[in-house]
This record gives sequence, structure tokens and C-alpha cells, in this order.
Amino acid sequence: MRPQIVLFGDSITQQSFSSGGWGASLADTYARKADIMNRGYGGYNSRWALFLLHHLFPLGSATPPVATTIFFGANDAALLGGTNERQHVPVDEYKKNLNAIVQHLKESSSTMLIVLITPPPVDEEGRLEYARSLYGDQATKVPERTNETAGMYADKCVELAKELDLPSINLWSKMQETEGWRKKFLRDGLHLTAEGNAVVYQEVVRVFNEAWLSAPKMPYDFPHHSQIDPKDPGKAFQQLCLGV
Amino acid sequence: MRPQIVLFGDSITQQSFSSGGWGASLADTYARKADIMNRGYGGYNSRWALFLLHHLFPLGSATPPVATTIFFGANDAALLGGTNERQHVPVDEYKKNLNAIVQHLKESSSTMLIVLITPPPVDEEGRLEYARSLYGDQATKVPERTNETAGMYADKCVELAKELDLPSINLWSKMQETEGWRKKFLRDGLHLTAEGNAVVYQEVVRVFNEAWLSAPKMPYDFPHHSQIDPKDPGKAFQQLCLGV
Repeated sequence: MRPQIVLFGDSITQQSFSSGGWGASLADTYARKADIMNRGYGGYNSRWALFLLHHLFPLGSATPPVATTIFFGANDAALLGGTNERQHVPVDEYKKNLNAIVQHLKESSSTMLIVLITPPPVDEEGRLEYARSLYGDQATKVPERTNETAGMYADKCVELAKELDLPSINLWSKMQETEGWRKKFLRDGLHLTAEGNAVVYQEVVRVFNEAWLSAPKMPYDFPHHSQIDPKDPGKAFQQLCLGV
Repeated sequence: MRPQIVLFGDSITQQSFSSGGWGASLADTYARKADIMNRGYGGYNSRWALFLLHHLFPLGSATPPVATTIFFGANDAALLGGTNERQHVPVDEYKKNLNAIVQHLKESSSTMLIVLITPPPVDEEGRLEYARSLYGDQATKVPERTNETAGMYADKCVELAKELDLPSINLWSKMQETEGWRKKFLRDGLHLTAEGNAVVYQEVVRVFNEAWLSAPKMPYDFPHHSQIDPKDPGKAFQQLCLGV
């Protein structure tokens, strides 16, 4: 009944309902208008995401999402030879995988608003600090992600969006426009602070608004309480059922 | 696929995905395990809620929610003769309406975990301050809700829960156990601060845990990334499909 907006991605999506999270803020903005469905899978890269497609977005569904954000790449960009190399996906394959996700979503709904989000920038020193906080002297001294590499993945993501004429959010670039972005937006060099979450939220709302998915313009799913006549409450609901 | 937990109520439910909100915190806790569906309708009382039942909880649904919180009463308890009297519902009817909601939910699913939540306490002076902040000298000097009246509704809610052997959360009592509850938990004498939201969150999690809906004991909806063999990622997903 209420349209669904799906957030499909990795840990940055999975954690998006934590305090100040961008998913929770979207849910608040679209309250009584759309359901925000969290389909974030921590640690997943775009290759593993492909295994989820038919489960999360079954073809032939009578009620596919009206919009989906695709937000992978932070794990794909883990370096070969680094501590997280098992998550690495070559950048060309990353682009191909994103394209496969988009094509599947288009097949499941020809009207779905699809938004591609690039990985955020990486604070390399922040990553090493975080590793030290977990493993002390045993922590790696070699970065397992670099900002430059994340940028290559961001470029491919934006490139694909342009080729497919889809809206995209270049989070990698956007965040680096702000002085002090490393500590301001990233809490462990990669995952988002509340302020980093606010950037994602604002960008997603901007893109949704520029498309046709503007919350202020969407109707409530049932009458506003002020429209209910206390002496004849059924009337407001009857009109709704008639689509008046 | 992923079980749904529905939060059914008034504005205190509708606003539960704002910053620090109890709904968002639940969504974070149950990430990858259950979807938290916000079915909060600001300004609604238990009488108007009845009009939503068949829309929100259609009988015969193949996938009814696994749990629902019912959280009405704050508007029912608006005083006759006060500025919000249009929302008033007599306390005996409130109990009857709650019972009608419960019976409908039971009819839609015999296994659904149903949790009744009482209205929160009311800070009468806080309500008047809030009215002054909106209307200045034109603001009413007469309370439109009293804490004592809210307590009568809370009593009926708990009474019904006991009669039906359902878990309940007496928010009205619970909040008043804490010194300074008026300003600590309520931001306008009625709606919740982040700390007030935290109380609701903790109580709902406690009740869910005491029943069978404990997030730590629930499985992830797809393999944890550490269980995926990067050389043969399909394996983890095949096993999942076989239910192994």
C-alpha cells in the first residue's frame, strides 16, 4: 500500500539506522508516505551482492520498490595484499557488477528510481588508528584501503551512472569539499559519523526531490487527523477508499 | 522474507524515527533480522485507529507481522472541554477499542507477539509552556491533558493486557520512577525527548527478549560476510537456499 524505498548496500547502509543515521533520517522524512527498507549487508562487495538480487528484488513482484539506492564499493576497494583483500573486487568488475544490479532492478520495474552512490573517501591514518585500537602492536602498519583507490571506484560508479543516465551521488568528492572531512565525517577512517550520515541523507533527499520522489509532495497514506470529523470519523476514510 | 515488526500508534510512534527515536533504535537492533514498520498516525486516537485495521493488517495475509506494538491513549486522554477535545475518547471505550485492535491482530495471526504500551505521563506545566510558545498570550491557561487522566488510561491498558495475558509496558508508571521525568523524558509535556525515546526502546527490547523475539538469537537473513569463501562465494548462498 505504502510505496517502498530500498537502501541496498554494505555496512554503511546496514548501519544507517544507528543514531543520526541517514536511513533513519529518510524514514523520518518519509513517515506516513513511504517505507524505507534497510537492505545493507556489512562486509559485502558488489560481487557478493549479486547473489542477493533475486531474493531481494524478485522479478514479477506486484509491488517492486519505487526507488532503490545502490551503495557498494567501499569493500570492493580493499587492497590486494591488505588485511581485507578477501573483499577486493577489481574496479572493472565492480562497474560490471553495478551494471548487473541496475539491469536487474530495471527488469523488476521499468519505473523504479535508481540512484548510484559512490564509496566515501578513506582516511588512511584513521584506518590505521582504528586497527591499533583493536589489535595494539599487532595491528597492520600498511593501509588496507587508500583514498586514491576508493576514488577510482567512485569514478567508475559515476561513469556508469552517466552511461545509463541515472542519478548518482559522488560521496567521495562531495565529502572532500569540506575542510576536516577525515574526522568530521568518518569515525574509523571509513564508516560515517552522525555528520557524515547527514551528508548522505541530504544528498539522497536532494536527488529524490530532483526526481519525482519529493516527500512534501507525496500524500499521507491515510487522512491527516485534522481532516477527521469527530462526529463522523468514517467519512474521511470512506472518501479515501473511493479515491476522492 | 524478513519478518516484520509493526509499530502501531499515534504521533509518539510516527515520530519514532527522528534522531534518537525508539523506532530507529529498534531498526538498528534488528538490522538484517527483522523490518521495523512505522505505522504511527499523529493525532489519532484508538477510535480512529479502528478504521485502519483492515488496511494495515489484512486478514488472510500470507505474511502477517511477527510482532506488533499497540501504543495509543495519549490522544484519547485529551480532556473534554480542552483545546484538543475532538480527540477525546472515554476511557471505557478506549479499553474496548484496544481490545478490538488486539482481537483483529489475533485473527490475522495466531502467533503474533502483541505488546500493549500505555500513554506516557503528562507534564501539565510543560503543555502550557508549549502552548505559550506557539500562541503567546492567546494560549490556553487550562490544561488540555492532565497526568492524572493519562494515568487512568494507562491503568485500563494494563488491565486489558492482564485480562488477555499479553505483555504490556506501563510507560506512565515507568517514566515517573525517574527523578526529573518531566523535562528529562518529555519535550513539550507529552512527546518524547531522546532520553524518553530510550526508555521506550529499552522497555520494548526487554519485552521482546522476554518473549521469543530476541535479536541476538535471530539469524541474519543472508550469510555473514566472514562465512563467504572469496574463492567460491556461491557456496554460502547455495547452503542458505537448501536451509543447511
